Order: sequence, then C-alpha cells, then structure tokens
Amino acid sequence: MKPLNQLSDQEKNKLKQILDQKYEAFCSQNLSLNMTRGVPSSEQLDLSMDLLTCVTEKNYHTKKGVDTRNYGGVDGIPEAKELFASYMGVTTDEIIVAGNSSLSLMHDSFMRAMVKGVMKESPPWCTLDKVKFICPAPGYDRHFSICNYLNIDMITVEMTDDGLNMNEIEALVADDEAIKGIWCVPKYSNPTGVTYSDEVVERLANMKTRATDFRIFWDNAYAVHDHTDTPDTLMPVLSACKQAGNPDRVYMFGSTAKITFAGAGVAAMAASKNNIDWLRSQMIFQSIGPDKINQLRHVTFFKNLDGIHELMKKHACILKPKFDAVQATLSKELGDLGIANWTNPNGGYFVSINTPDGCAKQVVEMAKQAGVMFTPAGATYPYQNDPLNRNIRIAPSFPSVADIETAMTILAVCIQRAAL
Amino acid sequence: MKPLNQLSDQEKNKLKQILDQKYEAFCSQNLSLNMTRGVPSSEQLDLSMDLLTCVTEKNYHTKKGVDTRNYGGVDGIPEAKELFASYMGVTTDEIIVAGNSSLSLMHDSFMRAMVKGVMKESPPWCTLDKVKFICPAPGYDRHFSICNYLNIDMITVEMTDDGLNMNEIEALVADDEAIKGIWCVPKYSNPTGVTYSDEVVERLANMKTRATDFRIFWDNAYAVHDHTDTPDTLMPVLSACKQAGNPDRVYMFGSTAKITFAGAGVAAMAASKNNIDWLRSQMIFQSIGPDKINQLRHVTFFKNLDGIHELMKKHACILKPKFDAVQATLSKELGDLGIANWTNPNGGYFVSINTPDGCAKQVVEMAKQAGVMFTPAGATYPYQNDPLNRNIRIAPSFPSVADIETAMTILAVCIQRAAL
Repeated sequence: MKPLNQLSDQEKNKLKQILDQKYEAFCSQNLSLNMTRGVPSSEQLDLSMDLLTCVTEKNYHTKKGVDTRNYGGVDGIPEAKELFASYMGVTTDEIIVAGNSSLSLMHDSFMRAMVKGVMKESPPWCTLDKVKFICPAPGYDRHFSICNYLNIDMITVEMTDDGLNMNEIEALVADDEAIKGIWCVPKYSNPTGVTYSDEVVERLANMKTRATDFRIFWDNAYAVHDHTDTPDTLMPVLSACKQAGNPDRVYMFGSTAKITFAGAGVAAMAASKNNIDWLRSQMIFQSIGPDKINQLRHVTFFKNLDGIHELMKKHACILKPKFDAVQATLSKELGDLGIANWTNPNGGYFVSINTPDGCAKQVVEMAKQAGVMFTPAGATYPYQNDPLNRNIRIAPSFPSVADIETAMTILAVCIQRAAL
Repeated sequence: MKPLNQLSDQEKNKLKQILDQKYEAFCSQNLSLNMTRGVPSSEQLDLSMDLLTCVTEKNYHTKKGVDTRNYGGVDGIPEAKELFASYMGVTTDEIIVAGNSSLSLMHDSFMRAMVKGVMKESPPWCTLDKVKFICPAPGYDRHFSICNYLNIDMITVEMTDDGLNMNEIEALVADDEAIKGIWCVPKYSNPTGVTYSDEVVERLANMKTRATDFRIFWDNAYAVHDHTDTPDTLMPVLSACKQAGNPDRVYMFGSTAKITFAGAGVAAMAASKNNIDWLRSQMIFQSIGPDKINQLRHVTFFKNLDGIHELMKKHACILKPKFDAVQATLSKELGDLGIANWTNPNGGYFVSINTPDGCAKQVVEMAKQAGVMFTPAGATYPYQNDPLNRNIRIAPSFPSVADIETAMTILAVCIQRAAL
C-alpha cells in the first residue's frame, strides 16, 4: 500500500468505497467491544486466587503477634512495610502501606495539601490565590480530574520520547511560585508507554523550583509491569532527590491493583522520612488503620519481592500476545499509509496512537458507531483538551486477542476514513 | 460503709491507712492492665472467622455477575448496599458502602466540606473566617481530634440523661451562622452509654439553624450493640429530618468494626439522596472503588440483617459479664460512699464514671502507677479539657472478667484516696 497522500483522486475514491463497505460490514455485526480502561482480564485475576484463602484461622497474626483482625497500626503491618519498601526501593521508615487504592493516597495527599499544606511551615493551598500543576500529556485522566476538581490550574507539557520536555518544565517551575507540583507516571507511562530517562529523573530531582513546597507526584503504577525480558529501567527518584539536596520533593505511589486484584489489592506511599512522619501525623485523624488482614494476605501470598516478580512474568505471558496483536494489526492495516503513529511499549497497560491532526474525536465516534468503545478522545489531556485532537488511548488488557484484532482493524478503517 | 463525708477524722485516717496498704499491695504486683480503648476481645473476633474463607474461587461474583476482584463500583456492590441500607434504615439510593473505616468517611466528609462545602451552593468551610462545631461531652475523642486538626472551634455542651441539652443547643445554632454542625453518638453514646430520647432526635431534626449548611454527624457506631433483651431504641433520624423539612441535615455513619473485625470490617455512610449524590460525585475523584471482595464476604457471611442481629447476641453473651463485673465491683467498692457516680448502659462499649470534682487526672495517674491504664482524663472533652476534671472512661470489652474486677477495685481505691 502507498502512503495515502501519494494516491491519485481516483485511487482515493476507490479506497473510500472499500473502506465504507468494510465499515458498514462491521456495523452490521452489532459488535460490543470495550477498549476504554486499563483493567486486568479475568485470566490475570485468576493468577492470584490463592490470596482469597491464604490467611485463615491458622495464620492471622503478624510475626510479632499482632492480631490483624483488630484495630491499630495506621501505617501498615511491619511485614507489609518491608515488602513494599523493597518494592518501592525505600526503607521501612519511608513508607506507609494503606488500603486498596493508590488513587486515594494521591487524592488525600492533595486534600491535605489544600487544607494543611505539604509541610508544617508551608501554606495550605486553599489559602493561595492560585495553585498550578504541571501535567505532562498525554497522561492519566484521573490525575487531571483531581486537579480539575480542586480548581488547580493545569499546565499541559507534551510528553517526549524520553519522558518529559525538561527544558520547558525547568523554565516553568523556576519562574512561578504558584506551580506546586507535577504529575508523573515515570515507567510505561499512561498512555504513551514511555519510561523516563535517567537524565529526566535527575533533572526533575535537581531543578530549581520557585515554590519551596514543590512536590513531584510519582505514580509508579507500572513499576514491575514488564512484558519482555529486556524491560525498561527507571532511576530511583527518591535517591536522586536526596542526592540533589531535595529529599522532600517527591511523593511516590504504588499498588498491587495490577498485580493481584484490581479492586482488592494493597496500595502504598513512599517519601522521605520527613514527609512520611508529617503525613502519618495527619493520617491518625483519618483512620485507626488500614485493613491489616488484606496486607497479611499479600505478604503471605508473595513472601517477598521475588514472589512479585514471578507473578509478573505470568501476567506478561497473558498481556504480551494482546499487545503484539495491537502492533501486528495496526502495522498491517496502517503501516505504510503515513497517517498514524503509535507507541510500542515494553510494558504497562496502554498503547497511544496519534491520528492525523484534528481527527481523533471523529475516529472515536466512528468506532463507537461500529461497536468499539475507546476512551473519549481528549481524555488524555488536561481539561479533556487535546490541542491537536489526535491522541487516542488503546487499552488492550481486558479483551481477547481475537477481539483486539477486530477492534484494531475497525480503528484502522476509521482512521483511514477520517484521513481521506 | 458510710458515705465518706460522714466519717470522723479518726475514721478517715484509718481508712486512708487501709487504702494505702491496698494500693501498695497492688503496686507490688506489677500489673499491666489496659482499659483505654473500646476494642473487641479475641473471643469476639473469633465469632466471625468464617468471614476469612467464605468468599473463594467458587463465589466471587455478585448476583448480577460483577467480578468483585476487578475495578469499579464507587459506592459499593448492590448486595452490600441492600444489607447496609436495611442496617441503617434507609433506601439503597441513600447509602454509600465503603472501606474498613467509618472514621475515614467522617474525616473525608470534613475534608470535602473544608475544600468544597457541603452543597453546591454552600461555601467551602476553608473560605470562612471561622467554623464551629457543637461537641456534646463527654464524647468520643477521635471526633474532637478531627475538629482540632482542622482548626474548627469546638463548643462543649454537657451530655444529659436523655442525650442532649436541647435548650442550649437550639439557642446556640439559632444564633450563630459559623456553627456548621454537631457530633452525635446517638445510641449507647461513647462514653456515657446514653441513648438519645425521641424528643432529642425530633428537636435536632426540627431546630432552626442560622447556618443553612448545618450538618449532624450521626455516628451510630453502636446501633445493634445491645447487651440485653430490652435494648434502648433510637428514633430514625433521617425520617425525622425529612418530616421536619430538613432532609439534608444529617450524615449517618455505621460500620461492622465492632460486629465482625475491628480492622477489616465494612463501613457505610447514609444520608438523603441529595447528599449521597453530591458526595458520590466527589468520591469518584478519590477512588475507583472500595474493596468489593470484603463487602461480598460480609454479605455472604451475614446473608441479611437477621444475620447481624444473631451475631450481636453472641457478642452480648461475651460482653455482658464484663459490664456486669464493672457494675458489681464499683457498687461493692464505691456504692455507698457518695463520692462517685457511673453509668450502667444497656449496650455499647463504655462505662463513664465521674469522680469527685478535680480528681480525675490524679486518679488516672494513680491507677497507672498501679499498672492499670485508663484513657487519659480529659480525653472525653474537646481540647482534652474536662472543666470539672472528673470524667473517666472505662472500656471493659478487651480484658478478662478477672482483670476487670482487679482494675475496677484499683480504680475504686484510687478514687477513695483522691477523695480523702
């Protein structure tokens, strides 16, 4: 196939006819395929079924004899802190192990910052005229939603192939005290799949920020979610911040939502001891403690970090063919046409595709009419505003390989029709 | 024994000698008894062990086929909403079923009120010069801590035998727009054990509040926690508010923390549909959803409200002898002395005792030296300030009957010594 822009008018008309026929054929099948969210498939969830029954009447105490059924322990049981400290590359006094949702830890950190500030000596954000956040995009819609909910101005900075446009970010944060932080998904970024280069991490840790209470919200949701034996590597951000003399700059978040059970996993937050102490001193007003039984389930199930890595290999075996199907179908259907480019990540949950400028909304709508749901175009940008209206997020984890092939074929047809 | 104030000086000296000897004897035993917190005993937690294993690979779907392992459902699974709606006496669109902590639901409601207000049209509390809360006392220290954390002024109103001093409260709320709410533990109140009379509930529902965004925080933590076959009854507050034309006035909270597992139960929040819709529209920014598996465990374990009531009878069998031991020992040691009065509740987790004015701190310190820990004197009052320094909270749920008898005997000795 020739690039579309090299076709004659006659060839274009012919192609259009063929595409319309294909599209109508798909529409007549009454398909209902959902590619909207990065949810694990049942087959993946089946890998952790032992979690349900691994804590029984025989083993519900911690090593030190704490009854996990009862009250107490606001920052998690010691063995869970050990496990997640090794998972997140920190010490046990740099971590809080919590309930089932890392999104809650992020949201609640924003709420506390609004009402109390991020340090004893820094002002509550709600007392400031304006708070701004840097939002690399395309990015995770739920991050942007929190800012929008709290009337925090979002500054869109385009993602690059090695993560972030650090020149732009450094200039912004050096100049504006109202910029209080940045959202980051540093590994297998949602949705582009990019992992930040060492240089990006180091520059984030070292950059001069006008705001002394600047915080990096480091949502390392895909820390161990590799699809291949040659995974991306990510520089440890807390060490980099310490080395740069900015130990309190980063809040790190992680969870087992995409390791064990999406809705019944364990989430954790890591940061400097200084930050953790300050956060813990406030969390005591929120809760007497997280679900310690579920933390013990996870420790019992995994035993240690190796246990997590072993499980992730099984996830990769399920996910890799799905991601391969996305690549194969898009290459076959769109490869030579010069109208779209897409990412090919080494891990994570998403593929990001750019259509011709101005076409994304139309493509998503067209696919919907043919029975394939994608995340709404624009959702990957602050204010749901993709300035070039070109980015679409593909979430291949849940559907079967066959459904993915169908969905990608339909997507390719829609993109070609929109391009013509 | 005669009332202490009728003793001659000689008799007093003799009694003092006897008490000092008893006290020294206890001190020499190196006791370590903890009566500080209302935590269930292991024996109580054992009643719910089937919870751990009642959801397995065979039954992890909801009736409608939702996979509880996966993401979704911000306000709880339908069967949990049904169960807790019946538990809290509301409809399923008046409830949100959440994670393991009702304290979190209360705290988070405060945080949202601070940042967003309690209704679309009402101002965020953090934008107001001053926010005040009515705090009936003696009350629950963790309620007061939330206010203190958020710099909300606490107005202490003494508890009465039928719950609240409504004359005082009506006068306060009619007059001051800054008073945005009241903390209530309406049944077997912590720590007095009082249940609000129908008149109190009706007057709370009907009273004129200067603040149009006034909220009752109705922490019905002991809703089914009866010790006898003739339990206290509580008028349904949401119905009363609706009838009074103030349907949005109340936020109700409940949990299974003192029904199943204290640290791994399920919490719920109930209110008018209007309130619930507003809260749910904000909760979507905080979490993709609660732990649905644990909700399903509870539904599977209880089946229905009758299942909860049946379990509570077993709790009563364990708790009643402990509360009886408190009453028997205090009556025996202090009954005729005219220096202390204490409550004798029909349920709940606490007995509240008043020492002679000015003695509570001294008594708690003295008991501590003899190896018995009580909640710090003053903790049951806002700002930890019991104006008469007389109230001590007794939490008999965790220790054994024998330990309770010892602890109460020591308490009685300490009170007598302080009184002399």
